[in-house]
Amino acid sequence: MLEKHELVIVGGSAGGIQSAVCVQKHHGLKDILVIRQEQKVMVPCGIPYIYGTLGAVDKNVISDKILGDAQKKVDEVVSIDPEEKTVTLRDGQKIGYNKLILATGSNPIKPPIPGIDKGNVYLVRKGADYLHDLKEVMDKSNHILLIGGGFIGVEFADECRKRGHQVTIVELLPHCLQSVCTEHLCIRAEDALKEKGINLITGNAVKSLRGNGRVELVELENGVQIKCDMVIVGIGVTPNIELAKEAGLEIGSTRGIKVDEFQRTSRQDIFAVGDCAEKYSFYNGRPVPIRLASVATREGKIAAANLYNPRWRNVGTIGVFSTVTGDIAIAMAGLTDSQATELGYDILVGEAEAPSKHLGTMPDANPMRVRLTFDHRSGKLLGGSACCTMAAGEISNLIAACIVSGMTVDEVAMFPMGTHPWLTASPLAYQLTEAASNALHKINSQWW
Amino acid sequence: MLEKHELVIVGGSAGGIQSAVCVQKHHGLKDILVIRQEQKVMVPCGIPYIYGTLGAVDKNVISDKILGDAQKKVDEVVSIDPEEKTVTLRDGQKIGYNKLILATGSNPIKPPIPGIDKGNVYLVRKGADYLHDLKEVMDKSNHILLIGGGFIGVEFADECRKRGHQVTIVELLPHCLQSVCTEHLCIRAEDALKEKGINLITGNAVKSLRGNGRVELVELENGVQIKCDMVIVGIGVTPNIELAKEAGLEIGSTRGIKVDEFQRTSRQDIFAVGDCAEKYSFYNGRPVPIRLASVATREGKIAAANLYNPRWRNVGTIGVFSTVTGDIAIAMAGLTDSQATELGYDILVGEAEAPSKHLGTMPDANPMRVRLTFDHRSGKLLGGSACCTMAAGEISNLIAACIVSGMTVDEVAMFPMGTHPWLTASPLAYQLTEAASNALHKINSQWW
Repeated sequence: MLEKHELVIVGGSAGGIQSAVCVQKHHGLKDILVIRQEQKVMVPCGIPYIYGTLGAVDKNVISDKILGDAQKKVDEVVSIDPEEKTVTLRDGQKIGYNKLILATGSNPIKPPIPGIDKGNVYLVRKGADYLHDLKEVMDKSNHILLIGGGFIGVEFADECRKRGHQVTIVELLPHCLQSVCTEHLCIRAEDALKEKGINLITGNAVKSLRGNGRVELVELENGVQIKCDMVIVGIGVTPNIELAKEAGLEIGSTRGIKVDEFQRTSRQDIFAVGDCAEKYSFYNGRPVPIRLASVATREGKIAAANLYNPRWRNVGTIGVFSTVTGDIAIAMAGLTDSQATELGYDILVGEAEAPSKHLGTMPDANPMRVRLTFDHRSGKLLGGSACCTMAAGEISNLIAACIVSGMTVDEVAMFPMGTHPWLTASPLAYQLTEAASNALHKINSQWW
Repeated sequence: MLEKHELVIVGGSAGGIQSAVCVQKHHGLKDILVIRQEQKVMVPCGIPYIYGTLGAVDKNVISDKILGDAQKKVDEVVSIDPEEKTVTLRDGQKIGYNKLILATGSNPIKPPIPGIDKGNVYLVRKGADYLHDLKEVMDKSNHILLIGGGFIGVEFADECRKRGHQVTIVELLPHCLQSVCTEHLCIRAEDALKEKGINLITGNAVKSLRGNGRVELVELENGVQIKCDMVIVGIGVTPNIELAKEAGLEIGSTRGIKVDEFQRTSRQDIFAVGDCAEKYSFYNGRPVPIRLASVATREGKIAAANLYNPRWRNVGTIGVFSTVTGDIAIAMAGLTDSQATELGYDILVGEAEAPSKHLGTMPDANPMRVRLTFDHRSGKLLGGSACCTMAAGEISNLIAACIVSGMTVDEVAMFPMGTHPWLTASPLAYQLTEAASNALHKINSQWW
């Protein structure tokens, strides 16, 4: 007798969990099976923090309690039959579904560098055992070399440094974080890393990883050789789409599973959410390679709402990123200047810096800078950044709210913010409204 | 020969300053005269903090540098002649204007309690000398009694307690902060105050202030008598409209100077901004008594933009308040539940609490709760609150952005927030989206 569930979810990380939770919230559905490969699910964004702040893999686990009435099965789905509406597990067992949500995630990219398969080279996979192994090797290492200066590289570097390791980052692009941040923020982040004693090598690639069984020496394209005790690679991810592909689902141009505005794939009753699903830009609806846990949870909610009827439209993805490097927080929402320019916008930029609290004489007041990028023609806010106090995370969410609601430079300048001496900048200097006001000033001053 | 300026601004606090700054930004105008009564301008929201955190009146001064090219004159305007387009100073000197912005602010309400004029009773006026006197009396006082448990009372109480004073608050309403906060937040604030050892008496009025020349004993309506060394009164403000009234300007029903959607008064070329100007609700356009420095600065910007032509429409005022009491921050945006109900809305409420950082195992993670109130019919967000970490201030601004952009409960639930382990709750638990999702769940669950 075929085991069958009303809803089967393949994948148990952010997107899968959020789908399971929200299907219960939206439809009161209880007959849900989550099939995942991992015994323990890692908090994806927490992985770098295992190594310094948290101190153990077990402190970065998402409790299964969050799944509510959904059942879980730790196993691997090896194929999907969309006609028969079944999934097949590794041992051949078939499980039937009425609705299927694919949340198969992504895998770290393994660059084709000679020596990449040596024992002390780690990609940042999400398995608890793998991450625990990584920690054991790290515990015995002095010098750690990170390939890739994106969020993963920067956050690992920071945490490793807290543990006292010697740390080197090798980044191909001219700056760390360059694919997600406007240049001035990259430079702030780099300064913060250097202040902590992290060795930064940018605009350079790794040519080979040399050593007997394990890497002892990293050779760069420019000939420089660096001795190290372990290598951690964080250069991006590729969506896990093999299952979907073999089941005949359409694949998009950024290699995600094609979905419509309701998170439905090309096959009936199959949805896809999270890193495995194609994303479409909020700005122009075109495929865009933004893969984040926060985006995955949003898609999980949308798929859940639409399980039986179209209810919520995914109006598009915008990237909202934040991180902490050294003692500063950096956050971005929406397009960087170069992304905006590439999309054909004529941009108008405004910036404002003020103490994070009134007057600057309140204790722990530190400079907070907001930078906003508008479309010159429509006046609409396209993107923005906040740096450097810990309020940056929520300020980037405020910027995101202004973007998705289509606010113009005039509307942001008039935004009815609240302020308080302990909690925000002064109303005369509030960075978001001032940045918009300064952008307007550039236009106004052309009329005098 | 009559001294004449293109723009005269009467009043040098938040609204007046912001007008002066923005007229320069919008029109490049340099011929601006700000006439104010105070030699030094206080940061209005900073006044309670003079007494504990800052330690001196001089640390709470807004520097005149912010005025840029605007001139200032410390004097009192005693009348306005809108026909002749002049203002008259105390010594009879007339000054001509082409445009006039009134930013005359408000005065603290002096309740008609017997004994209110005794020497050791202070209203919270904005003059530096007055506030300095208050400090000298406070320095010699042991027990301080505060009449009024609004923001002023609560913040003064907190600061006085930090200085080691014995502190009592007497509030007429059943709760502190009740006119601006939903009840559960009032209770959180009261608990925080009590934890600090502050004596709270609510639902009670002061009958008389007794003593020989100075108050020694406060008698309540219920007959209780409290010995104290000084009394500070913070029960609200009344707009300063005498000048405007005598000049024939129309006055609104909350006693502010009537203004149109461009901040223009009933007389040509005269604008009004800040506490002296009537406010109109974002929700229904009706007069609403919200008087805050942040609102004043917004109106200053709007008046400045519209000085020569209608450019920016004030679409209405919403209150966005935040404060810190004891160790917790409390913030509100928009309508409280009872305000919403009074306006005739059928309300739908959702709440969510989660650690302020991922997992709750990151250092200094504390509970953060967001509560949102929607209109059941349209789904639109009407108001919300955040409590209790310091992120509450910016979260209330995020809630304000969702309100003014007309987001519905579905849109808030789908909001594309960014998250980070150090900076925000986890994406699976982000309080704003979860609160909306929990509100939706109430509707959804009626269908099962």
